[in-house]
Amino acid sequence: MTIRDVAKSSGVSISTVSRVLNGHPDVSEAVREKVMKAVEELHYVPNDSARSLVQAQTDTIGVVIRGIGNPFFASVMAEIEKAAAKAGYEIARTQIGAEEDELLAGASLVKSRRLKGLILLGGRFDYSAEDAQRIDVPFVCCTFTNSFGDLATEQYSSISINDYAEAYRATQYLTARGHQRIGIVLERREDHSISELRCRGYCDALRGKGLLDEALIAETGSFSMAAAYEATKKLITEHPEITALFVIADSMAIAAMKALYDLGRRVPEDCSVIAIDGIEMSEYTTPALTTLSQPPEVMARKAVKAMLDVIRDPEAHRHEWVKTTLREGGSVAQAR
Amino acid sequence: MTIRDVAKSSGVSISTVSRVLNGHPDVSEAVREKVMKAVEELHYVPNDSARSLVQAQTDTIGVVIRGIGNPFFASVMAEIEKAAAKAGYEIARTQIGAEEDELLAGASLVKSRRLKGLILLGGRFDYSAEDAQRIDVPFVCCTFTNSFGDLATEQYSSISINDYAEAYRATQYLTARGHQRIGIVLERREDHSISELRCRGYCDALRGKGLLDEALIAETGSFSMAAAYEATKKLITEHPEITALFVIADSMAIAAMKALYDLGRRVPEDCSVIAIDGIEMSEYTTPALTTLSQPPEVMARKAVKAMLDVIRDPEAHRHEWVKTTLREGGSVAQAR
Repeated sequence: MTIRDVAKSSGVSISTVSRVLNGHPDVSEAVREKVMKAVEELHYVPNDSARSLVQAQTDTIGVVIRGIGNPFFASVMAEIEKAAAKAGYEIARTQIGAEEDELLAGASLVKSRRLKGLILLGGRFDYSAEDAQRIDVPFVCCTFTNSFGDLATEQYSSISINDYAEAYRATQYLTARGHQRIGIVLERREDHSISELRCRGYCDALRGKGLLDEALIAETGSFSMAAAYEATKKLITEHPEITALFVIADSMAIAAMKALYDLGRRVPEDCSVIAIDGIEMSEYTTPALTTLSQPPEVMARKAVKAMLDVIRDPEAHRHEWVKTTLREGGSVAQAR
Repeated sequence: MTIRDVAKSSGVSISTVSRVLNGHPDVSEAVREKVMKAVEELHYVPNDSARSLVQAQTDTIGVVIRGIGNPFFASVMAEIEKAAAKAGYEIARTQIGAEEDELLAGASLVKSRRLKGLILLGGRFDYSAEDAQRIDVPFVCCTFTNSFGDLATEQYSSISINDYAEAYRATQYLTARGHQRIGIVLERREDHSISELRCRGYCDALRGKGLLDEALIAETGSFSMAAAYEATKKLITEHPEITALFVIADSMAIAAMKALYDLGRRVPEDCSVIAIDGIEMSEYTTPALTTLSQPPEVMARKAVKAMLDVIRDPEAHRHEWVKTTLREGGSVAQAR
């Protein structure tokens, strides 16, 4: 009598039997009952050698990390591994550069490791149904969602912040303090990605108050600090009346603060700065950056939970927004 | 007539034949001659299907990256991949946390991917001969070397900066500007790693001038910015006469500058700061950090070169130090 017989008799996989017998939480009540009934009927007693056989066949979830060296993703990844291990899953991970395609990398990972599902940590916002066909296991987008593609929402899951709404909130934080000439520093206005979503939030927050001036939108063309530095210098030189900046990422905001300093503008006295991210480094700038902080642990836990749910039930795809937390530094002041 | 026949006849592997036929530079003259002689004798003509067969069997070099999310390693890694691809090798990589053992991770990678060699990107400084036996392919330590272990130098290669000498140089940069009360912020004084080596350089530079005071050595207990911030605050509060600090890493130095600011000390007017690393972020602090910059591209290229050399000739192990470049920011001033 082996675990294989139990699996066969109850009509589930060996790893599912293993998870039931090891008390993992990610098993539905119906499956648990079926397995335990078979265990009883067959008088199955798990032994060590059976257990180690099962461990060698642990189910695996793949993670494709897009954007090498992103410290935010490192924290998310650590938490994904913890949550997956708790549920009895192994993690197979692969990393790709920001210019590479996560669906291609994911498909090759699925093939080489026979995965149960895939978590995409960072990626494009414009999947088509055709794109998604490359991956024949359920997948979860972590930290982003498919805002610009035509893939049906019931075909994948996503956990992300609401880029539009958070940008709206950041901009409102500035208007609430009396600022009227507010610039934005972003990568490209129509990048079908976070720049575009956050730009919409910024525009709508200002348009509602009659404060929108599209001349105050500065494009950097890249997420590098050097590009953010130059774009900020140009924007402030051309529009010295600006009293506040919304910069779409912390690292770019640090470079923007440096540009303001080099132009002789004090932060926040002469110009306020707010961003979205919440990386460690921006707590140690002078002044510390005021930013809407994304919660890596929450995003990771929710992504693994969504993954386990759709592995169990392919119809269970869902889309969830997590909230940022305002981390007040000293980079925003009341307009004078 | 296939590439296998050529390999058999010339007594080398199929991938070596492939490298010769594709003109890769990492093949010795002797091997190249042997292969080309066999090609001629056997009238072998490479065709597309043979070429794709060979490509499916490309030789692989493993890379274990220790310390997830270290942006410096991301730059090194990108360059390692470029250099390896140029030499006709694939890269298999795995990442581990700072507390995990790179030799264990390396051994498992070697086993699962049948590697030709292994590059360890970051790791311990205290390998024993026994430790190294776990890995049965040649390996290269990149960014560190075995300063504290008993592994014989001819059993591995290393590419790193000379931590002792660079710390000596950083400290001398401060004494040359008239500073006499110079503190150091490091992780642990006897960590058998960079803290210990850099502390020795600092001590020797000051001892020679009769300026060493061990009370000015501040231990943080970790590489986190929060720990560096607190340790600096404590050190400066207890020793307000300090006019300059050598901090062993850029990220810790950014936190130290913040601590000085919060204590009302201006950088560099009241206290100078110098570090070792050269990360992008420290160019954007105010003032920009003066630091000895490690060259990621040079380290990566040299590590791959050393790897190719020992794959070809297991006796070719070598140890190389690369020099840092002084990147002058505004964080060091003449003592008053």
